[in-house]
Amino acid sequence: MKALLLAAGRSRRAKPIEDKNFLKFCGKTLIEFQLESLQSAGFQDILIAAGEHNKERIEGVAAQYGATVIQQENLDDGMAGAVLATESHLNDEALFIVSSNDVVEPRAYESVLKASESGADAYLLATQMDSYFPGGYLKVDNGQITDIIEKPGAGNEPSNLVNIVLHFFRKPDTLISALKSSSSNDDDRYEVALDQLMNEQRFEAVAYDGMWQPVKHPWHVLDLMPYFFNKMEASVHPSAEIAESARINGPVRIEEGVKVFDNAVIQGPAYIGKNTVVANNALVRGSIIGDDCVVGYATEVARSFIGDDCWFHSNYVGDTVMGENNSFGAGAVCANLRLDEKEISKSGRNKLGPIFGDNIRVGVNTSIMPGIRVGSNTMVTSGLVVAEDIEPGKFVHGKTELIIKDNRASLDESAREAMKKKLS
Amino acid sequence: MKALLLAAGRSRRAKPIEDKNFLKFCGKTLIEFQLESLQSAGFQDILIAAGEHNKERIEGVAAQYGATVIQQENLDDGMAGAVLATESHLNDEALFIVSSNDVVEPRAYESVLKASESGADAYLLATQMDSYFPGGYLKVDNGQITDIIEKPGAGNEPSNLVNIVLHFFRKPDTLISALKSSSSNDDDRYEVALDQLMNEQRFEAVAYDGMWQPVKHPWHVLDLMPYFFNKMEASVHPSAEIAESARINGPVRIEEGVKVFDNAVIQGPAYIGKNTVVANNALVRGSIIGDDCVVGYATEVARSFIGDDCWFHSNYVGDTVMGENNSFGAGAVCANLRLDEKEISKSGRNKLGPIFGDNIRVGVNTSIMPGIRVGSNTMVTSGLVVAEDIEPGKFVHGKTELIIKDNRASLDESAREAMKKKLS
Amino acid sequence: MKALLLAAGRSRRAKPIEDKNFLKFCGKTLIEFQLESLQSAGFQDILIAAGEHNKERIEGVAAQYGATVIQQENLDDGMAGAVLATESHLNDEALFIVSSNDVVEPRAYESVLKASESGADAYLLATQMDSYFPGGYLKVDNGQITDIIEKPGAGNEPSNLVNIVLHFFRKPDTLISALKSSSSNDDDRYEVALDQLMNEQRFEAVAYDGMWQPVKHPWHVLDLMPYFFNKMEASVHPSAEIAESARINGPVRIEEGVKVFDNAVIQGPAYIGKNTVVANNALVRGSIIGDDCVVGYATEVARSFIGDDCWFHSNYVGDTVMGENNSFGAGAVCANLRLDEKEISKSGRNKLGPIFGDNIRVGVNTSIMPGIRVGSNTMVTSGLVVAEDIEPGKFVHGKTELIIKDNRASLDESAREAMKKKLS
Repeated sequence: MKALLLAAGRSRRAKPIEDKNFLKFCGKTLIEFQLESLQSAGFQDILIAAGEHNKERIEGVAAQYGATVIQQENLDDGMAGAVLATESHLNDEALFIVSSNDVVEPRAYESVLKASESGADAYLLATQMDSYFPGGYLKVDNGQITDIIEKPGAGNEPSNLVNIVLHFFRKPDTLISALKSSSSNDDDRYEVALDQLMNEQRFEAVAYDGMWQPVKHPWHVLDLMPYFFNKMEASVHPSAEIAESARINGPVRIEEGVKVFDNAVIQGPAYIGKNTVVANNALVRGSIIGDDCVVGYATEVARSFIGDDCWFHSNYVGDTVMGENNSFGAGAVCANLRLDEKEISKSGRNKLGPIFGDNIRVGVNTSIMPGIRVGSNTMVTSGLVVAEDIEPGKFVHGKTELIIKDNRASLDESAREAMKKKLS
Repeated sequence: MKALLLAAGRSRRAKPIEDKNFLKFCGKTLIEFQLESLQSAGFQDILIAAGEHNKERIEGVAAQYGATVIQQENLDDGMAGAVLATESHLNDEALFIVSSNDVVEPRAYESVLKASESGADAYLLATQMDSYFPGGYLKVDNGQITDIIEKPGAGNEPSNLVNIVLHFFRKPDTLISALKSSSSNDDDRYEVALDQLMNEQRFEAVAYDGMWQPVKHPWHVLDLMPYFFNKMEASVHPSAEIAESARINGPVRIEEGVKVFDNAVIQGPAYIGKNTVVANNALVRGSIIGDDCVVGYATEVARSFIGDDCWFHSNYVGDTVMGENNSFGAGAVCANLRLDEKEISKSGRNKLGPIFGDNIRVGVNTSIMPGIRVGSNTMVTSGLVVAEDIEPGKFVHGKTELIIKDNRASLDESAREAMKKKLS
Repeated sequence: MKALLLAAGRSRRAKPIEDKNFLKFCGKTLIEFQLESLQSAGFQDILIAAGEHNKERIEGVAAQYGATVIQQENLDDGMAGAVLATESHLNDEALFIVSSNDVVEPRAYESVLKASESGADAYLLATQMDSYFPGGYLKVDNGQITDIIEKPGAGNEPSNLVNIVLHFFRKPDTLISALKSSSSNDDDRYEVALDQLMNEQRFEAVAYDGMWQPVKHPWHVLDLMPYFFNKMEASVHPSAEIAESARINGPVRIEEGVKVFDNAVIQGPAYIGKNTVVANNALVRGSIIGDDCVVGYATEVARSFIGDDCWFHSNYVGDTVMGENNSFGAGAVCANLRLDEKEISKSGRNKLGPIFGDNIRVGVNTSIMPGIRVGSNTMVTSGLVVAEDIEPGKFVHGKTELIIKDNRASLDESAREAMKKKLS
């Protein structure tokens, strides 16, 4: 049996996160996690649909798993295009399709495989929703899926089963034909083809109650973290140098070469990547920190996802997602709460920091507002308030103008003496 | 004997502090402190003059002390109006009048009561001033007060005795008559009536050398704190969770349900109210913190009075007075010192932070200047400098405008490598 | 033999550092260090050339070393003028000239003295440069210096020997004559006279491979620190009060009366001057802190030179040089890195903070950009970004204007309750 991992998407809604496939959770990228899940479920023949933008990087990973990378030429063709791009690699074996947009536990793969031992033509993984979720609901009749209804609206759900892209097709050639003959040229061409196939073939739902996390918006990265924290094995690598006065509380994984300086606190769950420095009096809690980072003096990183090579210094970073190679001047703040404490950027969260791409520099005492997206290769100067999204490759400064007059004020040395005396 | 506590004032000069009667010192409100002082001096029949604005709240407290609340209809009538409002509740018993504007030790009450055992008609508590104070000085002739002279000016004091509103009247009906016939319609009607009564009755001064603190301006709250710290019994409630690495130094009272996280320091004298969290690396010193507060990571609260439900996070709060339910974004600073280190807002202090009402939100990296008053129900956005008083119910923002250009700067990876190597 | 210490310069390029002679390294001023070096090399007869601006202060020091201070009237005459000013104090003894612009180890003095025991007319100390340095290169022919070539350019060096102003003249009267007859009226008059003398006399180079640090630009102060740290004897004065939870790591010298509060970290090499307070959670590393300073809560001072009486509070101070009696409001930041991480102010450094004179006040949350010079007696208000040099005696403020509207936002108490519950 073949598996096809759909990884060609451009992560548009996840911007400025460059490529969600390479977000690294506790030392492992999402694509590695998915490939390992496929392997442990028994798949040996894996295809990966990539785009021009990430093909090379995916090939680097694929090699380690013996997977074959296929380039989807036109990414506008969506999932349908990705499947069609693999046509020449398919044969009469069954096909198992997985999307990088849907992260599930490895046992989900096994459930679908196990279910496929009975004789239906296709199986779709489906999660049981207790309350309405804006996804594709399955209409099921006598155990057979007869329709997928996208976002039916609360109260109109045909079942409590929502479609997840872990799909099994016993006869992939029929899927290919259906995709080719699909009347739709839109984003939903894959779903239209499925609808058509359902008229001819028996589709069954495989119910699943484990972790399922769509990864579309940047905050989904934060939503995924608890799962990986739960899986994470707490440990301190023997090469790590932890100052005696530093505190490591709760489940924390500290990798090779990490240094934790005096009075730093790491409050689990937390992951500290290789060669990262957690400096004096810093606080890391509920966060994933990548490799080669510096969490400088008096910095708090709370409930955030931080890529490799990020440097902080006297910053507050809360509920933030960021890529690689970013650096923040002292006093720069990632705000994570509106003044009215209401929902931020339609994320369903009232705590959400800004989202950063890669290679970004932020000046001292600059404030980035909650939910703001800062594109890669951007520099933001000092003392600013950034309350709008910033495109990649920008240089952002302000209009501050100094008024310089002669200083007519005098200092009262006696006041100072008195203050000094009060220090105890 | 009856006692009358004058608590109807609108605390105008204390704005934006909403009602000084309910400022809570080490767990007890000022009005509770005064009612307990009256009770312990033996008063069982207590009247409280309240206004429409605080009657309901005062009734809640009065019930616990068996006190009767009387509403003063027109607050513009001042003290005279308050006393007149109680007329129907008075009988031929003596009347003891206390003002919420004057806070004294319980023994002051006892001194006046004891003095009243001799036969004069009225007694006024008087504190002995070593240097000039802008209050009402008593002119005393052969042990009898013959006049009250308001703010006579330095050098013109008729004695060293300054009037405090702890007044005993053996015949309150004569006071009522004098108030009714008073020629003054102004703020000083009470004093004019006293002057008139002095012509007919024997008034005596009761000298007092204990703590006396007028509570008119917000900084008087800070001035009162040392007294309550001295009275405070240091203790840590058994339910409090104090991290092993946290430091509690000097006289500190920690109430039920408090949590103190790693590396926090509480430097006494200090009071930490119920269920408050003092988070990692925070410093509280010389301060009263209310219930249900969060003193977040890397926050210092120094010599300040903080009401219930206030949240801080990487802030400096020095010499500040604030009400309830306020929240400060990371990096927001309560400045407490002028650049020229001179007196702030005619407070007689060179260290005084801003004063806050209730339900205020302050954005990240915003600076509030010394002595500034921020009214209740106000929001101040991020990155601002607030150097003017803000009325209640305002939304304050700035005129920051970003200039966004293409980023032509490049990063020098070798420089970064070199910096990383230097970290030890 | 006489020694002449040239200390009259106005430190123009070091501005806003007021007088480099009085920069205090680990408790000793530069001029004291040089006078002690002269004394330990055996000099008993020391002249110091001072200017009107620093004569009085230098006389205070000179007295302790039995040195004579001579005032150079016209500082525009440079080194030549300084030497000529001493003419009446010279006799037929040899003259040893040292400049306050060149700091070397005491053994350099001894090397020149020892070399002078052979019979040449003059000796110049010379350091061997491995790579090109923009200084005065010595042309040497058969052991004799025949020329000094200023800044020959890389590849054009006549030797690898660069002139340092530790000069020995066996016949100072010939130097005087040469200076008088020099055709130059410019800055280089001294060098022109030397060139002329070389035609008649035998000049020899004394090679030296020890520490040599020109002190011209402010960052040279930082460059000098490692030498003094190496010489420094680590110790904690018995009168110092160090909290049990404070950490003193590596070579640190702590002087009389110092207080180090809970959770502070001093990471050596570091020097903490008399009566200085290092407050809770502060971090001092690789820095010299003067006497009577306060390194307040949550402040980091890294790789910096701090004069006496400087107060910090929740600041970041990195790679900064400052004089005396400066004070920084909470959240003020000394930025020390460009966003592009490139060289700052032609200093050869990519990490360099701002440079401060004396008696400066900086408001809260103000950011001073890397390499910026802030003159003495200046006040900078709050919340500013200072990206230009500030002349002495200025009052710097901004154009911030608040927009104040009615607050129409409401607070969601349930959101707050939920946040509070999440705190652990």
